[in-house]
Amino acid sequence: MTCLKVHPMPNRPDVKDYIRTIVDFPHEGIMFRDVTTLFADPRGFRMAIDQMLHPFAGQPIDKVVGLEARGFILGGAIAHQLTVGFVPIRKKGKLPGTTISQEYKLEYGEAIVELHDDAIQPGERVLVVDDLLATGGTAEAGIKLIERLGGEIVGTAFIVDLPELGGRKKLEAMGMDVHVLCEFEGA
Amino acid sequence: MTCLKVHPMPNRPDVKDYIRTIVDFPHEGIMFRDVTTLFADPRGFRMAIDQMLHPFAGQPIDKVVGLEARGFILGGAIAHQLTVGFVPIRKKGKLPGTTISQEYKLEYGEAIVELHDDAIQPGERVLVVDDLLATGGTAEAGIKLIERLGGEIVGTAFIVDLPELGGRKKLEAMGMDVHVLCEFEGA
Repeated sequence: MTCLKVHPMPNRPDVKDYIRTIVDFPHEGIMFRDVTTLFADPRGFRMAIDQMLHPFAGQPIDKVVGLEARGFILGGAIAHQLTVGFVPIRKKGKLPGTTISQEYKLEYGEAIVELHDDAIQPGERVLVVDDLLATGGTAEAGIKLIERLGGEIVGTAFIVDLPELGGRKKLEAMGMDVHVLCEFEGA
Repeated sequence: MTCLKVHPMPNRPDVKDYIRTIVDFPHEGIMFRDVTTLFADPRGFRMAIDQMLHPFAGQPIDKVVGLEARGFILGGAIAHQLTVGFVPIRKKGKLPGTTISQEYKLEYGEAIVELHDDAIQPGERVLVVDDLLATGGTAEAGIKLIERLGGEIVGTAFIVDLPELGGRKKLEAMGMDVHVLCEFEGA
């Protein structure tokens, strides 16, 4: 008689396991959470896309908006998965057509993001995606742009949240549904 | 007896129909071929991704490389469709890890693109994607980076080719398989 050995389920990999930290990038004192190692891994990338979409299953979505530039990678994949259109929000001067623009604060100074003024139709249901939620400044500016065109935000989805920087609270205070896959301590 | 009427197939929409031209962007005399209207349309976007992949059906592909920034939108969607990893080639200073870099010529001056030095393993089969093939300078630099890491280029895929600018010939002279969905005359 042989005894069937029960193998324990191997630990399921977590999105966080694929993210590496680069110390002092882009400048000293910053622990940069690098998602390129997640994107480069076939399981990691698929897991990230699947998990970003989970809470929105069954909800009608008309457009996916990605924030420049890593949000384009995620947004392209998610829009394709949902068979909906993809719309970029870009830094000032990059979009060729007529745009509306929105200022937001950086650590030092200000920046501007833009959206084509015909990219979202009034009443369209929009999912906003980016890789990382820090202070939430770019996402907040992007949401304002979409709402100025009459778009309805279904939700926002990020891979990484840095809770100490308060982005999540900022977006939730705007009434946003904020979905993140993992958190890292420290800025 | 009823007579079955044969309906002609309605004209199939073409990727080119979704692309708009912006005159004098980014500077006077340029007819900018704007693919954001293609990406924003659910049928257009899906058609573009499907058609970019057609010639590579059945070929093993390990990684999709997208060129910053519109190549990220396409590359994210294509990598997700193939369930493989996505790797970005970015402008100088944007990638956080250790990189290799490659210079290339612009109309005026030079530019540098970078690739993480651990993003491609020797022998990996790579598909390179971007929205537009003009002089082919960025694509050529990107291909050199991938080959320096030992990657094998399965092919390159673009939505738009501007044949007068010679990019296709340049890449084909490097031995590349170049796949484009449509052409526009003029620079």
